[in-house]
Formats: sequence, C-alpha cells, structure tokens
Amino acid sequence: MSNTFGNIFRLTTFGESHGPGVGGVVDGFPAGIDIDQDFIQHELDRRRPGQSRITTPRKEADKVELLSGVFEGKSTGCPIGFLVRNTNQHSNDYDNIRNLYRPSHADFTYTQKYGLRDHTGGGRSSARETIARCVGGALAKLALKQIGVEIYAYTSQVGNIALEHDYTHYDPTQIETNDVRCPDAEKAASMEGLISEVKAKGDTIGGIITGVIRHCPIGLGEPVYGKLHAALGGAMLGINAVKGFEYGRGFAGVSQRGSEQNDVFIPQNGAIGTRTNHSGGIQGGISNGQDIYFRVAFKPVATILMEQETVTLDGTPTIIKARGRHDACVLPRAVPVVEAMAAMTILDYYLLNKTTHL
Amino acid sequence: MSNTFGNIFRLTTFGESHGPGVGGVVDGFPAGIDIDQDFIQHELDRRRPGQSRITTPRKEADKVELLSGVFEGKSTGCPIGFLVRNTNQHSNDYDNIRNLYRPSHADFTYTQKYGLRDHTGGGRSSARETIARCVGGALAKLALKQIGVEIYAYTSQVGNIALEHDYTHYDPTQIETNDVRCPDAEKAASMEGLISEVKAKGDTIGGIITGVIRHCPIGLGEPVYGKLHAALGGAMLGINAVKGFEYGRGFAGVSQRGSEQNDVFIPQNGAIGTRTNHSGGIQGGISNGQDIYFRVAFKPVATILMEQETVTLDGTPTIIKARGRHDACVLPRAVPVVEAMAAMTILDYYLLNKTTHL
Amino acid sequence: MSNTFGNIFRLTTFGESHGPGVGGVVDGFPAGIDIDQDFIQHELDRRRPGQSRITTPRKEADKVELLSGVFEGKSTGCPIGFLVRNTNQHSNDYDNIRNLYRPSHADFTYTQKYGLRDHTGGGRSSARETIARCVGGALAKLALKQIGVEIYAYTSQVGNIALEHDYTHYDPTQIETNDVRCPDAEKAASMEGLISEVKAKGDTIGGIITGVIRHCPIGLGEPVYGKLHAALGGAMLGINAVKGFEYGRGFAGVSQRGSEQNDVFIPQNGAIGTRTNHSGGIQGGISNGQDIYFRVAFKPVATILMEQETVTLDGTPTIIKARGRHDACVLPRAVPVVEAMAAMTILDYYLLNKTTHL
Amino acid sequence: MSNTFGNIFRLTTFGESHGPGVGGVVDGFPAGIDIDQDFIQHELDRRRPGQSRITTPRKEADKVELLSGVFEGKSTGCPIGFLVRNTNQHSNDYDNIRNLYRPSHADFTYTQKYGLRDHTGGGRSSARETIARCVGGALAKLALKQIGVEIYAYTSQVGNIALEHDYTHYDPTQIETNDVRCPDAEKAASMEGLISEVKAKGDTIGGIITGVIRHCPIGLGEPVYGKLHAALGGAMLGINAVKGFEYGRGFAGVSQRGSEQNDVFIPQNGAIGTRTNHSGGIQGGISNGQDIYFRVAFKPVATILMEQETVTLDGTPTIIKARGRHDACVLPRAVPVVEAMAAMTILDYYLLNKTTHL
Repeated sequence: MSNTFGNIFRLTTFGESHGPGVGGVVDGFPAGIDIDQDFIQHELDRRRPGQSRITTPRKEADKVELLSGVFEGKSTGCPIGFLVRNTNQHSNDYDNIRNLYRPSHADFTYTQKYGLRDHTGGGRSSARETIARCVGGALAKLALKQIGVEIYAYTSQVGNIALEHDYTHYDPTQIETNDVRCPDAEKAASMEGLISEVKAKGDTIGGIITGVIRHCPIGLGEPVYGKLHAALGGAMLGINAVKGFEYGRGFAGVSQRGSEQNDVFIPQNGAIGTRTNHSGGIQGGISNGQDIYFRVAFKPVATILMEQETVTLDGTPTIIKARGRHDACVLPRAVPVVEAMAAMTILDYYLLNKTTHL
Repeated sequence: MSNTFGNIFRLTTFGESHGPGVGGVVDGFPAGIDIDQDFIQHELDRRRPGQSRITTPRKEADKVELLSGVFEGKSTGCPIGFLVRNTNQHSNDYDNIRNLYRPSHADFTYTQKYGLRDHTGGGRSSARETIARCVGGALAKLALKQIGVEIYAYTSQVGNIALEHDYTHYDPTQIETNDVRCPDAEKAASMEGLISEVKAKGDTIGGIITGVIRHCPIGLGEPVYGKLHAALGGAMLGINAVKGFEYGRGFAGVSQRGSEQNDVFIPQNGAIGTRTNHSGGIQGGISNGQDIYFRVAFKPVATILMEQETVTLDGTPTIIKARGRHDACVLPRAVPVVEAMAAMTILDYYLLNKTTHL
Repeated sequence: MSNTFGNIFRLTTFGESHGPGVGGVVDGFPAGIDIDQDFIQHELDRRRPGQSRITTPRKEADKVELLSGVFEGKSTGCPIGFLVRNTNQHSNDYDNIRNLYRPSHADFTYTQKYGLRDHTGGGRSSARETIARCVGGALAKLALKQIGVEIYAYTSQVGNIALEHDYTHYDPTQIETNDVRCPDAEKAASMEGLISEVKAKGDTIGGIITGVIRHCPIGLGEPVYGKLHAALGGAMLGINAVKGFEYGRGFAGVSQRGSEQNDVFIPQNGAIGTRTNHSGGIQGGISNGQDIYFRVAFKPVATILMEQETVTLDGTPTIIKARGRHDACVLPRAVPVVEAMAAMTILDYYLLNKTTHL
Repeated sequence: MSNTFGNIFRLTTFGESHGPGVGGVVDGFPAGIDIDQDFIQHELDRRRPGQSRITTPRKEADKVELLSGVFEGKSTGCPIGFLVRNTNQHSNDYDNIRNLYRPSHADFTYTQKYGLRDHTGGGRSSARETIARCVGGALAKLALKQIGVEIYAYTSQVGNIALEHDYTHYDPTQIETNDVRCPDAEKAASMEGLISEVKAKGDTIGGIITGVIRHCPIGLGEPVYGKLHAALGGAMLGINAVKGFEYGRGFAGVSQRGSEQNDVFIPQNGAIGTRTNHSGGIQGGISNGQDIYFRVAFKPVATILMEQETVTLDGTPTIIKARGRHDACVLPRAVPVVEAMAAMTILDYYLLNKTTHL
C-alpha cells in the first residue's frame, strides 16, 4: 500500500523528481543470491532519459548505489537500501506552474489531498520514481534467473500502428535492436516515425506494451484476493500513464464461446499441459506452467509543449504552455518498468507459495 | 492477500461451494452506521442463482445471518461476522470429475498447488465465494450512502452485442428492468436472445460490465503503489472469469494524441472541475471529483455442457461432459459483484485518506 | 492488526459475549495437515467455563463447527472458517450496567472510541473472544506436531504463592492433574485454597503463567521489527488482563553482569548448543534451538462481586455491584490461551522463515 | 514485519554497522507538519556514541540527511527517505570473529537462518540500526507535539541500583542533567559509579528504563490484536537487549486483589477520569486519557572485554576475547530509542483511530 509494493518481497520507495534523489528499500529478498551490480545498472540504463533520439534529451547519469544487504557479493537476507542521486534538475523550468494545475497531471489531486505539493518536476508523481522500480525489478530478475523464469516486454502498439501477431510470432532477442523496443523492425521504424512526427508538433502519443513470462513455476497465486493475474494487473496499473490491463485473450475474448476459448488439457513433455493457451498461463488465479502474457495500455502523456487552457490554484482560468524536456511517447522507456513490475510480482508470489506446505 | 480484501476496511472470506456454507468477517467497518439487514439480503438476492430464465436454475435460498458487530441496529466498530448456509448442493453431480481436470477450470492448478482439492462444485474456486463479496459490498454501500457516493454497474456487452454509447448516455434506473441488467431495453433483448441461443447449445458466452462511481470525494488514492485505479483494477481482476480492466479512455485512448486526451481544468460549480473526463475521474492515482468509470472483461465461463477432451489426474487422455446446472453467461449475476468490489474499494480508500492529515 | 493475528498464518476473529456466537477464519494454514476435530474440541474444553470448582459456574457447551477448508479429513490450504454458538447468555444480568462504566473494564474506553458499546457481557471485550484463539491455536498445534515442536504452559504463581524453581524442574505431564494447572501438586493445593478464599469474598486475584516451547527449529524470527520474542510478547500482551511479559532471564537478569548472563557456545549432540540458556532460546530475535521460555503477568480481573464507586455515562457518581457468574482467578483457564498464542506465533514464523531462501 | 514498523505510520529501515550507512523510509507521515531538522539531529545526538564518559568512546558524527518528502519546510505526505552515513568503522577490529560465534550475540542465529552473515560490527544485528528508529521517532514527536502528546523515558535501574518511587515522583526536566539519564541526581551518581566499576573490569551491566506518555488522546488502540499496550510492548521488545516489558502495575500487581487494583471512575476536570491509575492509562487495549507508563528490562549487553569460551563456525571449541569500543551499559543511550518507539506507536495508533468513524 502507498509506497510499498509486495507481500514477502517488498519494495518501499521514496524520492521526488527534483529533490536530492530517488531510492528505496528491498526487504524480504532471499539470502545467498549473487548480486551483479553491473546488471542492476544496466537495467536502470534501459529506462534512462536521453538514451536515444526518441526519448527526452535530458541527460541523467542515474547511478545506483547499494547501501546495505549485500556482503561479499551475495545478498544477506537483510534489507537492501539503495539511492540514485538526482543530478540534472532544471527546477526553474517549473516556476511557471507553481500556481496552476497542468491538465491531466496529478497537480490538482495532490494539492487537494495533501494540502500542498512539490511542484518542481512533478514531485513525487514524476515518472522518475520508476527508477526505484527498475532497481527492485533488477534484483528480482537476479533471483528469478536462478529458478529459470524468463521475463520480457516490448512495445506492441504506438498510436494506431500495431503488431499484427501475438507474442509467439516474435523473437525477443530483436526487442533491443531498435529505439522503440519493438521486435518487428519494420513496424518499429513506422512507430519511430510516428513518434518523431508527434514530437515535432509538441504533442504526445500512447500505445501498448506486451509482457511475457516464460517458465513460471506451477502454483503461483493466492486465491481468492491474491490471484496472480490480479496482482500483475494491479502492479501494471500502478505504472504512470497506464489505463488498462488484460491477460490471455483479454477483451477480445469476451465475444468467444466457452467451447472456443477453453484450453483442453493434454499430456505434454511427460507432464500435463494445455493444447491452446487462451487462459494466458493462469487458471483460478494460479499459474499453470504455460506462458503468461498480458497487455498494458498507456495513454499519451499529459505534458505537451502546446498551449492549453487551465486554472490557477484559486480557480482562475489561464493559459499554460509547458517548457522543459519531455518524452513524446513513454513506451520505449516503460518497457523495462513493465518487466520490473512483473519480475517483482513473480518473485513475491514464488516466495509466498513456499508457505503453502509445512 | 489471499482471502482478505482491503487495508482498513477488510473483508476476509471462507467457504466452499458444497461445504456447510460461505461466510466472512468484515473488520475495520466504521462505527455508528445504520445496518439495514433487508438491504444486505436484497443485494445478495441480486446475485442469487435461479432469479431469472437466463441464470442457472439452481434454487439457493442464500439467507445471510449477521453474527456480530451490530448492536441495536448500528455497527459497533467491532468485526462483523456473517454466514450463508449452503442448502442445495448436489455433490453427486461432481462424482465424475473427481479424477480429472476440467478444461480452463482451477482443478489442475489447485491440485498442483495444494496437493489436494475439494472437487465438489469447484470447492473454493467456485463463484459461490462471491456471496461473501456481496455481503461485504452491501455493508460498504450502507456506509458510502452516508457520504453521498453512488455506485452502479451494468452489462454493456454480451458476445458481439455491445452498447454503442458511454455510460453518460444511459439511465441507471433502467438497469434492473431486465434480466441482463442492461440499461438499453432493446440491446438487452438482443443479449438475452444470444444467451438463450448459446445456452441451448450447452455453450457459454462472455461480455463486458461497465462500472460507474459518482460523487466520489476528491483525494482518494494512495500513490505510488496504492493508486485508486490500481486498487479498483486489482479488485475487479480478482472476480472469477475476469480477463481485463480499463478505466477512463482505456485501451481505445492509446491512439489519441495528448492534446486530444488531456482534460482541461475549468471553474465548475464554484470549485475546480474538468471540461472533459477522459481521465476517468482519477489523476496521478487520486480521485479528482469527476465520475469514475471503468470496464471489466469477462471470458465465457469454462463449464460447458458439451463433450471436451481432457486428462485424468495421472495425465491419461479422456473425455469429459459436465452435468449440473450452470450459467451460460455470468454477467447478469456478476453486476452486483462488480458493484460490491467497487464499493469496498472506495470505502477502504475513503478511510485510508482520513489518515493523510493529523 | 485489529482483529487479525499473524502474518502468513492469520487468525481473524469476530463475536461478542452475548451475540449469536464467536468465531473466526484461519487463513494461510498449510495444506495437507490431518485435522483432528476431537483435538480441537478438547483444546476448547480446556478453556471452557464451569470445568471445575474454581472457575465460573457458567455452563457453556462451546461446541466448535468447522465451516470450510477441510476436505476428507485434511486441510486444503483454503481458509478454515469456524463458529461456536453462544448458548447460555443471561443478558439480563447486565441491565444494571447499561448506563454506567465498570471500574477497570473496557466500558469507558469502548464507548469513547466507538461512540456506542454492546454492554451485555462485555461485548467484544469479553474474554469469551479467546474461544477463537483456542481454535486457532489447536489448528496451529496440529501443524506443529508434524515438525516436532512441543508447547506447554502452566500456572506458576497465584497472588503471592509462587513456584520456587524454573520450568526445567517441573514435569509437564503433571499440569493437568489439578484444577489450577500447576505442575507442583502441593503449590497447586495452596493456590486453589487462595482462589477459594478470594472468591468467597467476591474478590479476584492475579498471577503468572509460564510458557515453554521445546524443539523449536533454529532460525525463526524476522529481525529487526519481527523478532521472535517481540512477536511472542505482543501476542501474550494481547490476552485479556495481561500486564507484563518477560523471556529468558527477564526482569531478574537486569542486575547480572554480562559475564554471568552470556550463554557460552558448546558442541552439543553433534551440533552447536549453549551451556546455559539465560537467553531463553532466542538470540538477535531468532530462535537458536534451545528451549524458549517466558512468563506472562495477569492482573486480578476487574469484575468483583463487591460494591464499587463509579460514574454513569454522563459522569454522575454512583455505586455498582456486579452480578453474574465470574472467575475469581482467570489463570487456570488462561493456560490454554497462552499455549494457543504461542502455537500460532511459532507456526506463523515457521512459515515466514520458509521464504528466507529461494 | 521484518524491517517495517507500524501500520499507517510505517518506518522501514536498512543498513549495517560497517556498510555505507544506516537509513530508512517513513511512509504514511501526515502532510503539512513543520519539519524541524535541528530537532531531528538533536534526537539522533542523544543516542550518539561518545557523548559522555560512560558511553563507548567511538566518535561517530551521525549526521542525518533527509532525501524526500519535505518541501519548503513542511511534510508533503509523501515518503520521507533518510540516510546517515557510517564514517568511523574499524572493520579490522572484527577480523578475529569472522570464523566464530560470539556468546549471546546474533552471530550463530543469523548464520543459521541466512546461510551467511556480515560479521563486521554485528552487521544488521548491531544496535547501530537504532539510528533509524531515532530519526523515525523524531519525526513522530514533531507530529505528536501538534496534538499535545508528551513522551519521555529515563533510566530507573542499573544493576541493583533502582529508583524507589514511581514516575509521578520525578521531574522529567532533570533527566538530561546527568549522563545516565536518571531524574534522581543522587541515584544517577551511584549508577554512574557502578557502570564505571563494571566497565573497568571489561564487563557489562543491565537495567530498566521507565517510559511515560502524557496527554495521550482517549481512544487509541485496536482490539483485539492491536491493543495499545500490546503494540507498545512489541515495539519495546524489538529493541536490542530487551528481555521484558510491563505496564501499569505490571508484574508487581499480580499479587493484588481486584478490589485493590481496580481504578474507580470519578468526575475529573469536567470529564471522566479515574481516582487511581493502576491500569497504566489503558483499559481493554484502548487509552483512557490517564498517563501511560511502562517499564522495559535490558539485559547486560553481550560484548564483554573478557575471555570467553565459544566455538568456531564448524563447532570446534575456542576462546574469544572481544576488541573494540563498546558500552558497558546501554541504558543511557537507549533512553531516546525507547522514546522513539513509543512516539511512533502512539502516532501510528492516533492515525489508525481516525478511521473508526466515517
């Protein structure tokens, strides 16, 4: 709740966009895991601003320092504190929004809820908080690697440009070959073109990220209020700008018949599998060993470099035009965040599932 | 987690389809609320089987008994225990599934996770558990009524038959005028026809339920991991058969530009409102006072009265044909469940929000 | 928190002294445990009123009904609901206290906190709630038996009459041989005499219960805020009438030197043990495999059959004289409650500890 | 649980004695509170080593940096991250204990539980972790000051030297006038003499700290598993070296009669109070507006500068003699820690209590 994510594996985060830094504490991390700090930094670099032509030109070093919980290269089972210093704030960029509410931003709701707000750079509501998610996710990935779980995500739609096939059609090794993080090179080029076009107008555009979890152990999920897909969905919906989540056949499956959508059980590699996987790897809220796949809808981000009507803190109509350096499309940088939330969820439920039996 | 829903308002449920009964405990319910037991029973009756031609013909009385926490008609602030006895089980209907796994049911995953399962009527994975949700939701509604929050849901799509307009176009008082719980009488008739057709074949069909929360106080939501829509989405995804959740413009909004989707702030009734409400009443994870609206995707339920391939517990291929009395489409009976989960979420976050200030 | 005890193993209870009944839900109970219902009832009978001359003469059957979570004699991993109906309330006994506050009871604080109270029989603050603790504790004991953990408690002091030796001196099989539940027959007789004497005057008397946990696995405890002794202490302090908790050398050890109190490590049965056990089986908040022992202080219960000054709800001075059937000393009946809280704590931490490693 | 303390106000801590630093995150802190950073540093200085002749001569600057959650001098309602860098570690002091277990330390249990341990300076089990508690406690005190709650603690016993009277007899303004933090100057001198004597021998000594909470609002406490005194007791028992907790008449009261110990209600300053306060300000687990007072037993700390028997990691007997700079008696420096835990508990329950009514 609030600033803690997870039940057994728990990430608690802090930090604002323009304060001293962003960080967190990972508690409940299993002991004895090899902590590869280069990998953690690498994951963080994947969400870093300024990494390509289509992301914001802000240059932020975003170097993570681990403050505890690791001894001679291994996790100790004690909490892992970490900190990423903010280094490249232009707080003056925000002087003009101190006394007004940016449309579709959290300015109004934070002010109403808390009675005051840190207006610089969005304060706590800034997507800069996802730094801490990426560090937590990288740690989770290091643990999951030991049990063979594989997690990846990719941009499957930008604006109206959408991949035509489901995830089984694409090679995940192609995701990082382009700036959009889309495994289809041709579509990626179109998406990049669209983003550039939108950006040139000072506008923004949304899209969809597809996530895949492979080799998930059977049995993860805690019915009835901790179903695995409900936890995944809640995790994804908590990412900035997300407006929807679906898994398996999702919204498209509602017009099917049960006889079409049911996944028939069959013998599979000496165990029990399913002939199809419309369920998306989860039945009754518990993983069944098939691939888990899901889609996450991102709205176009609210910060546009165009004039908009709004009101001041006291309700007087005015005009706002944002300054600063912003992403026209957040999806490329949100891909690692989706992976991070999935990794933390799976590790958390893996640990929870260990308590099912004495 | 597991069988407890909520943070401050907490519903903990128990019970299987064919055991002695289904019940729960509501803890953290505010003191001094008038407890209208007829209203609670009425809400429960809305999900009851056998209430119309298009639902399962099982006749279950489903009478709720409140066991504690109410004194002389008012809530005392102490936990409210309740119990609904099971009265009409035909456990023999399930003898034939004892040794096999029904396709797309939880049979396989429960057996793998727990090492054994109660096969009668689906055991804990049965939608009969939603009885407890409806009781919890009815209590939450009684509290919310005192602060003016209004919650309703309706069937907006069955199979391919979908309402054409958004919720603002429909009159909620029309929802209960037909068996499908759809506010458009003509569409309702078509949906009912489709359900009957599917049912005649022993098949099932999915659909979409739209939920609306009106007059929600500003300020509900606990960023960054307890955003209001993430909590709502997690709650909805935990309902049996749900495969997707979206709010505001949802998936459709991903192809819009930021300049189209942003909700401009304007003076409104002496306060601050928004000209449009593409955000769906929530910004930065916190309610902004506008209507909250969302859509929930239900797959066609897995129990079909047709022959299907499957395997036995030891993996041998076999054929299953379900017996028993089942819904061809769960949406009409799921409408009160969606409302219940929304009501409990809003009350929980209302109470949480009281701790924002000293 | 509030009416839920535990982290993984979680007991949620409900019920008032004079309502329909007392019950609860045990969630997170491991799957596949043999559920011996006679044992559960037997544990409940140990706290039952009217079981001996020195307890209250109220006759309450206190029959427990398990409502879920057990299938063909084994726990399913799903929540175990249970209910004990109230059968022998004399609510009229309480008419005279409706409008006043009984000294040192919860009447005043409940009324101030909640704005109203169920005055009959103490309502929720009645020790009758410990019925649910005994059921939860009996379930926990059934699980712990499978891993060899042994838990017992006994009355070690009543008023000024105290056992002279520590727990290692006494044979636990002697505890149930007398009504006081004290393993020293001679002291037990003295204690029983004192209780009878106090009872004859309509007064009450306190005492101390000693608890012992043997064969606790090494490694239980979650530093730094979930230390095993802190969890045990919090659990014991939550029992009605408890005013103090100490473990190991406790309060008496504060005047020792470190060189006297330290427990030197030695080879022990092929493993590592300690020569002495002043620590009480816990070091750094984690069990070390030695016996865990602790003491719990109970005040004399507040209900005395003598005239006392008090005030009415509006603050007017008046005189109260309790009627009804009450215990002059709660310790004999509190022994199983202490065991229950210890058993639930140990099982909970045993399950938690399973998440320490992948 | 584990490294998070509290329910609404939640402190999550991290850090080892000889790692980069100790820090934490305070979540759920009320918005709009004036954050006096000098006061926070002052509270931290009260637990600092090297502050007087009777504490360890280690000189640690222990400067706290607030990393988030404060904007223009006020709390924003967002999480407050903080960090205290370690600056004066002599890790070489610990080379000799790498391969053995110090008697009555957490070395053995940490190694058994986690499979490895950070042996330098006690790692996570070091009392250096209480730095984070003092920062959290200082923040809690800043909030409590606004509602008039006053909290203080003092050393009431060292070894056999004990104050003769209860807290009502002593002037809290005298506590900080001596190095022992005892409000009776004469006793303080004796205690200081005893500590010096013990220290000269390389030995250690325990004692008792008394805590007092005044002007606590009526109604704090969440029965039945979140009783206020159970929360306080659990909090105190979690402090390093604590072996016992009692409140009100505590252990001494067990030999009283109910007629002696009951607190009669009387009209008091236009409201309702009690003539005596044997209950210690809490009835039925809920504060009644009278002073809350309690006592906390500290064992002599385990690190002594004398030869002791022990075993190596593989169980071979050996001799250990600790080096380094240690406290002969932790009580003077533990006084602010007791206050901190009390302050965080009271603020947490104050916030929780706000959810009792709509």
